[in-house]
Amino acid sequence: MYVSMESFGLQPDGGEDAALAVLRAIDYCRGIPGATLVFPEGTYHFWPEKALERLYYISNHDQEKTRKIAFPLIGMNGFTLDGQGSTFMMHGLTTPFVIDNSSDITLTRFTIDYERSTITQGTVVQADESGFDVSISEDYPYEVSSGKLIAVGEGWKEPVKGIIVMDPHTKAPKQGSGDILMWGYYDRGTVEESGKRRIRYSGFDHYSPENGDIVLLQSGYRDCPGIFVNNSRNILVEDVDLHASIGMGFIAQNSEYLHLRAFNVMPRPHSDRLFSASADATHFVNCQGKIELENCLFENQMDDPCNVHSIYAQVSERHGEDLLCRLVHPQQRGIQVFHPDDRVRLVRNDSLLPYFESQVKAVRAINAEYMLVELEAPLPADVNGGDGLENLTRTPDLHVHGCVARANRARGFLITTPGKVLFEGNVISTPGAAIKISGDANYWFESGAVRSVAIRENVFEDCNYCYPFWGRGIIDIDPEITNPESFEGRYHENIAIERNLFRTFHPVLATGHSIAGFTFTNNVVELSDRYRQADELPYVIDLKACSYVEVSGNRCQEGVLVSRINGKEIQQLAAVKE
Amino acid sequence: MYVSMESFGLQPDGGEDAALAVLRAIDYCRGIPGATLVFPEGTYHFWPEKALERLYYISNHDQEKTRKIAFPLIGMNGFTLDGQGSTFMMHGLTTPFVIDNSSDITLTRFTIDYERSTITQGTVVQADESGFDVSISEDYPYEVSSGKLIAVGEGWKEPVKGIIVMDPHTKAPKQGSGDILMWGYYDRGTVEESGKRRIRYSGFDHYSPENGDIVLLQSGYRDCPGIFVNNSRNILVEDVDLHASIGMGFIAQNSEYLHLRAFNVMPRPHSDRLFSASADATHFVNCQGKIELENCLFENQMDDPCNVHSIYAQVSERHGEDLLCRLVHPQQRGIQVFHPDDRVRLVRNDSLLPYFESQVKAVRAINAEYMLVELEAPLPADVNGGDGLENLTRTPDLHVHGCVARANRARGFLITTPGKVLFEGNVISTPGAAIKISGDANYWFESGAVRSVAIRENVFEDCNYCYPFWGRGIIDIDPEITNPESFEGRYHENIAIERNLFRTFHPVLATGHSIAGFTFTNNVVELSDRYRQADELPYVIDLKACSYVEVSGNRCQEGVLVSRINGKEIQQLAAVKE
Repeated sequence: MYVSMESFGLQPDGGEDAALAVLRAIDYCRGIPGATLVFPEGTYHFWPEKALERLYYISNHDQEKTRKIAFPLIGMNGFTLDGQGSTFMMHGLTTPFVIDNSSDITLTRFTIDYERSTITQGTVVQADESGFDVSISEDYPYEVSSGKLIAVGEGWKEPVKGIIVMDPHTKAPKQGSGDILMWGYYDRGTVEESGKRRIRYSGFDHYSPENGDIVLLQSGYRDCPGIFVNNSRNILVEDVDLHASIGMGFIAQNSEYLHLRAFNVMPRPHSDRLFSASADATHFVNCQGKIELENCLFENQMDDPCNVHSIYAQVSERHGEDLLCRLVHPQQRGIQVFHPDDRVRLVRNDSLLPYFESQVKAVRAINAEYMLVELEAPLPADVNGGDGLENLTRTPDLHVHGCVARANRARGFLITTPGKVLFEGNVISTPGAAIKISGDANYWFESGAVRSVAIRENVFEDCNYCYPFWGRGIIDIDPEITNPESFEGRYHENIAIERNLFRTFHPVLATGHSIAGFTFTNNVVELSDRYRQADELPYVIDLKACSYVEVSGNRCQEGVLVSRINGKEIQQLAAVKE
Repeated sequence: MYVSMESFGLQPDGGEDAALAVLRAIDYCRGIPGATLVFPEGTYHFWPEKALERLYYISNHDQEKTRKIAFPLIGMNGFTLDGQGSTFMMHGLTTPFVIDNSSDITLTRFTIDYERSTITQGTVVQADESGFDVSISEDYPYEVSSGKLIAVGEGWKEPVKGIIVMDPHTKAPKQGSGDILMWGYYDRGTVEESGKRRIRYSGFDHYSPENGDIVLLQSGYRDCPGIFVNNSRNILVEDVDLHASIGMGFIAQNSEYLHLRAFNVMPRPHSDRLFSASADATHFVNCQGKIELENCLFENQMDDPCNVHSIYAQVSERHGEDLLCRLVHPQQRGIQVFHPDDRVRLVRNDSLLPYFESQVKAVRAINAEYMLVELEAPLPADVNGGDGLENLTRTPDLHVHGCVARANRARGFLITTPGKVLFEGNVISTPGAAIKISGDANYWFESGAVRSVAIRENVFEDCNYCYPFWGRGIIDIDPEITNPESFEGRYHENIAIERNLFRTFHPVLATGHSIAGFTFTNNVVELSDRYRQADELPYVIDLKACSYVEVSGNRCQEGVLVSRINGKEIQQLAAVKE
């Protein structure tokens, strides 16, 4: 059944606050499984004032906050939203989409944008030895107070916490910049007003952008992801563009069967904007079933295009047969990591290797940080505080194909799932590693070990141009194990890299450790001169604490391409078995 | 069935964090209707770290925050907690008790206290023309930063927002002080460190405390009421002392049949503390059934001993047959004011008089501020934005007897309920009005009009000694109606004040307007010299826009006691009918 927004008194391009009319239309559609809510093409505006409010703990976002939601798709079973090409323009701290406790949802044919996101864009003018001026257009209100720059939006103010330097020619992060003016580095500088819509930075002795560089001044809020999916299944997002979000473009947790087809995170077209989402383009936490990213564009977002992982809870204390577990990372707090019947295992803090496996019998959430977990099997005597408890059930398969990722800050695809991973036919050009396969139980607490990863027939175009900020190799496999050679077991298994084209100025193709089963076969390597090469050329493939390694059938241009496998140097990429 | 805390591994006076053991004991008792959880006598400590966390919107407290709860009595039906004389000592921002969605709960024989509340106590030394020093003991950590004083607790810091000046002889607010160094007045001053554990205030040109005065420096948090009751029925709190809370002592909303017997809000005995709760001692919002306060002591809390009211929602817009209503006061946001089948009425913004009555059919909460309300009857054509929507169902009867209230900041008993009110046999000595009967739909939004109030056989001892800060008459009836004489209808009805003893230096016994049915009969008035009298003596009873007034049979000492009833001056209190 088709339901038109016009029957709820909302006209396209009317300029009024659409939040209440949309809420009423969604309430109406909730009673009609299979309903399609249709928007006549136009621009619709959303303010937080009369938007539905809910408390959600959203992984990797700011926690313990209620959020105002433009499209609260809560408890919907069988629902399609067809924007027919409309633009949904957000104002203030409005979260565009929440899909919660829902199934069989399709979102299609619309654009999400913000009138003012938390990125402030400016142009560097008058850079000299003592500092540099930034000219900022009226689209980005700000204040300067006590030497600090504060971004100002509708109903919010937030200090700027870093500068991302963009190259005006490539429209991407500038080689040599990386995070060199972010966070702690940023705090070294001070700001003063130096003219109308003009500020001057000084105090950065370690780096300066140049005249003409574009700077993206990032504020800290991560309140409003574009689309948040919680506890839901069978979600299709198709032909949706996201030009801005205050947080990630798409974030799903505890959900299954998620398909993004032509979900394009990219700057607003026909504008001078060089930013899209203010954090990752897509992120999947504790999901299961299958995740498919198909023909998506991930461009100019302020963090990685994709991250798939679950969460290590840290064992705090044993209470009889209950484990008191803690979610250590502040942005993971409040996430329901374990559910009755989930398969789980305990891993050691240092090796990340498992030593006990069972099923969850009961979970008692205490607060956002702590929970009591009871398992079906009796606990082993040697369970230690600091060890990790990992969910084996909530580990999805992942299929990424036909996607393009480029010009963002940071890395490419972060893959930490034991499910079957197929990464094929993508074109990647990221300032850090294009693919990162990590896992750690001490800082980010992102689990778990991979079991089957195929990376094939992709094009890696001049990745890692902000080396050494965001990765070592173009494919970087670096679980956080301090002394990998001191353990016999291998954390990751079965990573096959085949038939890819590496067109690269930075010929460090793969780095890694703690892998059983690594093949690098039938790839083509072409050297490029698009960026300056580092003075010292590291190993083209550099692996340690690895077993079952095969490197064979690769074609590469002339040049010294030396690899190192478990401490042994090997010339060229032709044929190695270890 | 008796359950001892010892079976959960908790020893009295053990010093450890009791939160997790208490949570497990409560979880256990939830399965045993009628259980009594018994604490071996001793002191038990509670930190927030491992305490249960929930989001609650608590009326008249800080909103949109999750709270960590020491005793989360959620979904309990038939439960007694017997402390056997124990002390529950709170640390950091821990909320002691939440009773939510529960029935038939008894709390008895314990003390609630905080190691460090948000009140910082000090002694004035070296007061002179330019300012005054305050000596602060090590019990109250603080910082001075940019001319501001910041109270420091376990895990929190909060700027001081005002000074309450206490008389070292009476241990009560000092005559002439009131709120004269609070909020905006406080912001005129600055602070600097003037020695070890010593600060100096300057910049208050309008008032200074004197050497030896005790000052209570109040920070703003209202996060942790002592006992919060939500959506529950049949609650008895008996023989419970509360020495500190970061918020109110007891606050109930949307609950019924609440009985406080010997619930004593008072400073920690055998200490030099002159403060108890940091806000009202008790507060009841949108309750129904009966509220009984019996033999309670309300002493030295930083706001009124008791306030009973419902909430006017403001009509924002009409949407067809739905009313979009708004909770305007920030501390009322998120409270579920209306429920299906509640009887409600619309009142005019200026007169507060009703013009339409119906029943609630459906409520759609949108966010903490807005809701859509659908009524059973068709809406009248002349419903206006700004009018109030009032709940007539959630209006409790109130019986206050045998209570003592004294030495607190602000007023006495605030009564705004159409239920039957009986206030008898209490002893009240408050710095403002002893009883205040108000109602307003423009600032506090506290409803509703009284229908039957009997105030009899109480002793009012030198109330209003901080006049003019917190009331006009000892009994002050002041609904917020700007031009009461311009309306024929009367807001309040049937207030009978009889057989009370007013022993008072300030012979303004009753002030009021907009009342139909006011009797002041057979009271005794004795003049006291405990405080300085105001130079100009106002009317002893001062009423306007009142009907059915009777003043008769009162006995009073010699002296000119002139009343004014609807503009007419009347000598003495002997016999007036109007």
